[in-house]
Amino acid sequence: MTTAPWRDPSRTPAARVDDLLSRMTVEEKAAQLYGVWVGAATDGDGVAPLQHEMTADQDWDELITFGLGQLTRSFGTAPVDPALGARALARAQRAIADAGRFGIPAVAHEECLAGFTAWRATAYPVPLAWGATFDPELVEELGGRIGDDLRSVGVHQGLAPVLDVVRDLRWGRVEETIGEDPYLVGTIGTAYVRGLESAGIVATLKHFAGYASSAGARNLAPVRAGAREFADVTLPPFEMALREGGARSVMAAYNETDGVPASADARLLTELLRERWGFTGTVVADYFGVGFLQTLHRVAGSPAEAAHAALEAGIDVELPTVNCYGKPLVDAVRGGSTPESLIDRAARRVLLQKCELGLLDEDWEPERQGPVDLDSTANRALAGRLAEASVVLLDNPAGLLPLAPGTRVAVVGPRAADPLAMLGCYSFPSHVLTHHPDVPMGIDIPTVLDSLRAELPDTKVTFAEGCGVTDPDPSGFAEAVARASEADVCVVVLGDRAGLFGRGTSGEGCDASDLRLPGVQGELLDALVDTGVPVVLVLLTGRPYALGRWDGRLGAVVQAFFPGEEGGPAVAGVLSGRVNPSGRLPVSVPRLPGGQPWTYLQPPLGLASEVSNLDPTPLHAFGHGHSYTTFAWEDFRGTDSEIATDGSYGLSLTVRNTGDRDGTEVVQLYLHDPVASVTRPDVRLIGYQRLRLAPGEARRVTFGFHADLSAFTDRSGERVVEPGALELRLGASSAETRHTARLSLTGPRRVLGSDRRLRCEVSTDD
Amino acid sequence: MTTAPWRDPSRTPAARVDDLLSRMTVEEKAAQLYGVWVGAATDGDGVAPLQHEMTADQDWDELITFGLGQLTRSFGTAPVDPALGARALARAQRAIADAGRFGIPAVAHEECLAGFTAWRATAYPVPLAWGATFDPELVEELGGRIGDDLRSVGVHQGLAPVLDVVRDLRWGRVEETIGEDPYLVGTIGTAYVRGLESAGIVATLKHFAGYASSAGARNLAPVRAGAREFADVTLPPFEMALREGGARSVMAAYNETDGVPASADARLLTELLRERWGFTGTVVADYFGVGFLQTLHRVAGSPAEAAHAALEAGIDVELPTVNCYGKPLVDAVRGGSTPESLIDRAARRVLLQKCELGLLDEDWEPERQGPVDLDSTANRALAGRLAEASVVLLDNPAGLLPLAPGTRVAVVGPRAADPLAMLGCYSFPSHVLTHHPDVPMGIDIPTVLDSLRAELPDTKVTFAEGCGVTDPDPSGFAEAVARASEADVCVVVLGDRAGLFGRGTSGEGCDASDLRLPGVQGELLDALVDTGVPVVLVLLTGRPYALGRWDGRLGAVVQAFFPGEEGGPAVAGVLSGRVNPSGRLPVSVPRLPGGQPWTYLQPPLGLASEVSNLDPTPLHAFGHGHSYTTFAWEDFRGTDSEIATDGSYGLSLTVRNTGDRDGTEVVQLYLHDPVASVTRPDVRLIGYQRLRLAPGEARRVTFGFHADLSAFTDRSGERVVEPGALELRLGASSAETRHTARLSLTGPRRVLGSDRRLRCEVSTDD
Repeated sequence: MTTAPWRDPSRTPAARVDDLLSRMTVEEKAAQLYGVWVGAATDGDGVAPLQHEMTADQDWDELITFGLGQLTRSFGTAPVDPALGARALARAQRAIADAGRFGIPAVAHEECLAGFTAWRATAYPVPLAWGATFDPELVEELGGRIGDDLRSVGVHQGLAPVLDVVRDLRWGRVEETIGEDPYLVGTIGTAYVRGLESAGIVATLKHFAGYASSAGARNLAPVRAGAREFADVTLPPFEMALREGGARSVMAAYNETDGVPASADARLLTELLRERWGFTGTVVADYFGVGFLQTLHRVAGSPAEAAHAALEAGIDVELPTVNCYGKPLVDAVRGGSTPESLIDRAARRVLLQKCELGLLDEDWEPERQGPVDLDSTANRALAGRLAEASVVLLDNPAGLLPLAPGTRVAVVGPRAADPLAMLGCYSFPSHVLTHHPDVPMGIDIPTVLDSLRAELPDTKVTFAEGCGVTDPDPSGFAEAVARASEADVCVVVLGDRAGLFGRGTSGEGCDASDLRLPGVQGELLDALVDTGVPVVLVLLTGRPYALGRWDGRLGAVVQAFFPGEEGGPAVAGVLSGRVNPSGRLPVSVPRLPGGQPWTYLQPPLGLASEVSNLDPTPLHAFGHGHSYTTFAWEDFRGTDSEIATDGSYGLSLTVRNTGDRDGTEVVQLYLHDPVASVTRPDVRLIGYQRLRLAPGEARRVTFGFHADLSAFTDRSGERVVEPGALELRLGASSAETRHTARLSLTGPRRVLGSDRRLRCEVSTDD
Repeated sequence: MTTAPWRDPSRTPAARVDDLLSRMTVEEKAAQLYGVWVGAATDGDGVAPLQHEMTADQDWDELITFGLGQLTRSFGTAPVDPALGARALARAQRAIADAGRFGIPAVAHEECLAGFTAWRATAYPVPLAWGATFDPELVEELGGRIGDDLRSVGVHQGLAPVLDVVRDLRWGRVEETIGEDPYLVGTIGTAYVRGLESAGIVATLKHFAGYASSAGARNLAPVRAGAREFADVTLPPFEMALREGGARSVMAAYNETDGVPASADARLLTELLRERWGFTGTVVADYFGVGFLQTLHRVAGSPAEAAHAALEAGIDVELPTVNCYGKPLVDAVRGGSTPESLIDRAARRVLLQKCELGLLDEDWEPERQGPVDLDSTANRALAGRLAEASVVLLDNPAGLLPLAPGTRVAVVGPRAADPLAMLGCYSFPSHVLTHHPDVPMGIDIPTVLDSLRAELPDTKVTFAEGCGVTDPDPSGFAEAVARASEADVCVVVLGDRAGLFGRGTSGEGCDASDLRLPGVQGELLDALVDTGVPVVLVLLTGRPYALGRWDGRLGAVVQAFFPGEEGGPAVAGVLSGRVNPSGRLPVSVPRLPGGQPWTYLQPPLGLASEVSNLDPTPLHAFGHGHSYTTFAWEDFRGTDSEIATDGSYGLSLTVRNTGDRDGTEVVQLYLHDPVASVTRPDVRLIGYQRLRLAPGEARRVTFGFHADLSAFTDRSGERVVEPGALELRLGASSAETRHTARLSLTGPRRVLGSDRRLRCEVSTDD
């Protein structure tokens, strides 16, 4: 028996795929372009938007006759024992390979937003918490660990990271993002991609693009944004994660921007992504996103038109299951309304990726996984380190934290004793187990109450729930007030319940109409503050909430963004002092519940001004966070200078831990552009460095600024560096500048290409 | 003495102006490009944004040496007796003409948003109330009457109408707009322009363009909008008012859109406005808008750069006073950094307009005004008709209104007994008199309480204020509840206090962070509803407020948008039944206070959907309003048809008054486009007709739809008619369709030019 030409390892992948394509029928090529979602519920309680309407029952044996492009969420759809799941997936792959003429298995994909979304897999902190760490190294490690786990059970592709830049804090999916700054999202997101790809897993950048900017923050609502905002805020994280992270897949977003759905936008998915950026991987649809072109966007009149529009725009793979890319597309090609070349283009990309993944190799076999443990000790340790690094101490005016030894503590609030309070909506327990109430959680998730009791074994810790997350009933206030009154300090644990499509207060399809704390939690907090007992507010949330109402009335405020299965110990460690908080805000904490959309990237007229009575200044600025130790910022070097518009410039300073305990400072570099040809944000982040320092220890940090980092999209639509004045501001937050270097850029206006520098080089003296 | 060539009436205006320009120095030409604001306050209490920072004291005699382009608000700045003001203006004009070498007076401009903003001038209902009338004829009459009054005192130009289309209900200037639909704004605004221009007054379209869409609804905040939204929503009213109304001036807006300030946007002010639309009048700056390019937008580094940017973009006249177009500009021209041709271009336009206004004529003299009465009986009658036509009966489920004879009425609420409750922020009392507390109002403004007592002389009408507009003090609730409890019906009059820059709850610089009723007015309403006495809610507001909290709990709801000096009798007339309400909502009334921005122009994903928990469906839809009589919509003719993509189609129906009293129905025509190449609003208004009918009377109304009305901006940026299905829906509101005609447009996609049809022809059988 000779090796089939498409399996011949001595030929180039392109030659192997071309050979394959030349042998395939339209049906066989089309079959490479869709996924199948086995076992997905078709009643009202799905995990994807309109799942019940869009999912038809499929006959598996019939379906795989022509082969199959993708297998959708074998693990992420229902509770499956990981080892059994791995064997079942291998069997399914074997069946697919055996059924088609060419023996090609599917690409198996899963969600892995904050860990593998599978039963008994580690639930890490959500991406918003990664943003709060300002620690790309840690996030790269996370990506690698998640990738290893995915690979251990036969999965090839992970539908992460989310690179959407927050534009409205009310959006339900804020928890899934890395924050409101493109540079932070880009650098942290790229680190995750590097980790995932280093494990051989195809990372999928999503949602490409603009999804976070929906009007009124309603999920999937139209985006009102101009081309410059799109180019300068929305796209940069994707560009960085492709160029520096090597992501091999991109997911087209659900939303439209200014009338054009991303999933039918050839300018975005083909001209920009492939022709300008040189991307060669696959573009996949968001779940049902192809069909939505007909049913929700109404830019297509039929499934065949939707398929044509999506394919022409550049979506290679329809997910999660076949609606439009099957019979409607095949008929359209046979009928002549859709050119076969569109199918060929997409199939070539899919098959090239399969070739790259070894799925076309002679020796491919799906059954050779090793032992499976998706929640290993090492995983948990990493989850803990991430959680600890992500907790933000927002306020501690009189040093109430850490809690003094012997303090009697009343723990109050609806989030104190619920393990699910730790998890975002893409965690398996929140995402899937809610439909399987009899199935155990599968992972150990200590609550804040558990953890605080463990942390303070000699301390009396009482508890009252006070109220529910959304329940309007205040009848529990009295008991909560009583517990608080008997204590020295009241720790009030408030926040969100993550869920999907209205089943939670945060998560996909759980948008907020304003930024009031959900339910009567704000009123509970009022009642507790009124006791006169010092209150420590602990927030376990998926988005920031307006805290202006309690400004100056709280003993301390600790913000954790769904910190994962080890979040309870991390928060308790911050309260006890075992953990010195080092998180910094990846999103602003507003003063007022209204006034959205607002993030810190504002030109002057987006800031407080006499021309409106409304002051959008947040209570806590982007980048803000306290420590239990103190730092001196010494020996700044950054004299006023002239550099060329293609020049670079170094500025440096020494950070010294002047307190008596280990601690971590985050030095942030912001750019201020005083005059430009279009309006510019007053400040924007262009570099940062996390520095862990022992008491008395000092480290020097040097930022290598290049003029490219001042670039923006001008009126011509080009990305340019303009000559003129600039300020580089080193700060402890976007609102707290410590040192400023004034530059004058001289020489010609420069138009940048796709080789522009994206990143500030940072070095430290260790 | 021979006639100077530029005064020679036998020569063309262009030749006269060219002659003048050839004789003028740079200083003299520049002087034609700015206004002077005599007497404007330079302390913190101005009427324009940052007036105190931007207004320098000027030496009048020195200033006018070179001539003067504009005289700013001789009447609108401080209380001036109109007849004395007219004489003072004439003197100033004489002085200007005498001071310069060419004897050219200034163009005198004033605000006239809802009447001449002058002491003792009629305060008409605000533009949002005009929108509620759906009555262009009445608004044209208004424009003519305001124009006559301006002309009677020597004013040449009025800074109105506002053609901004509401995009966020929280914005303070919603009261100044005609509503949230471009067709309504366009048709009503054009009627106003026709009226004003028919009186010889230069109408000034503002704010060009995009100003209503500021992010977070904060005044002057950056606008996030794409090119399609701009073309299809923002611009159409301006196009109509120029083409059909003949407006001779346009004001550049303060805002930026996607990074480009309108006031420095040559694509907008020159390429679109002049080159594509053929506009030949003047473009004026919004007050201080040129200087703001430096100080607020930071796209210019100095006053000279700001002048250059504005002039190059196409702003001909700097208002209100000279900051940048004086010495900085002259020096820049002399220094060679700004070409003199830019000054010439602007000066030519200004002088051509002066020529057209007769200001270059030999026989020009400023002193020949006749008698002055700015609040004539005829004015008041018109103000009353407009107010009556604008009151919207939102709800009257059990027919509580009109009030039954003999009903004991308790009037409650902070807006019931305050004459200022009737007026918007550009009324003279709200705009200027607030700085002159000792000066009497100058016009008679009956309150709702006064008017109701006059309307119901035999009825016991008690009163309690209950609370203030914004004061958090609820101590007056008890008395209000007591008065209500003694009555048969409680009429609760709530709403806004108009003011500028934080001095009110509605108006310029008085933006709302959400749509809760201001202060504790909502809590007062709760307390009154709790009495069990039927409550009639009367709203005197500048924007809609969220009323979902009281849905089903109120006896009736009457919405008036600052109805002007005759608004009290109009509202009282609706309550008593003397006036049959006929207003229709020009803006949606939301259910919830959050969730903005939202207006009714939404593609499917902007409407309620399973993909978000938030339901933006308003409590009362755009176009909604009840009557005391009933109407039958009979004999609809609009069979399903095919028409060409350049074809037209008539549909008609008969409306019959089936009740027992006179009444007015508003038939509205909406377009639904099921599938298009970009997303389209689910419905949008394309025609309407107000029909006044006696009991039993029937009238037939015919709408002449042309395919051009289905046009939109497609992906190529062109405005096109696409073949395919359309639905024409005749409705009583945007949410209440009565009859539908299904069309199929056949033939080629058509690209429309600037001669496209803008308007649906409507005819009635009388």
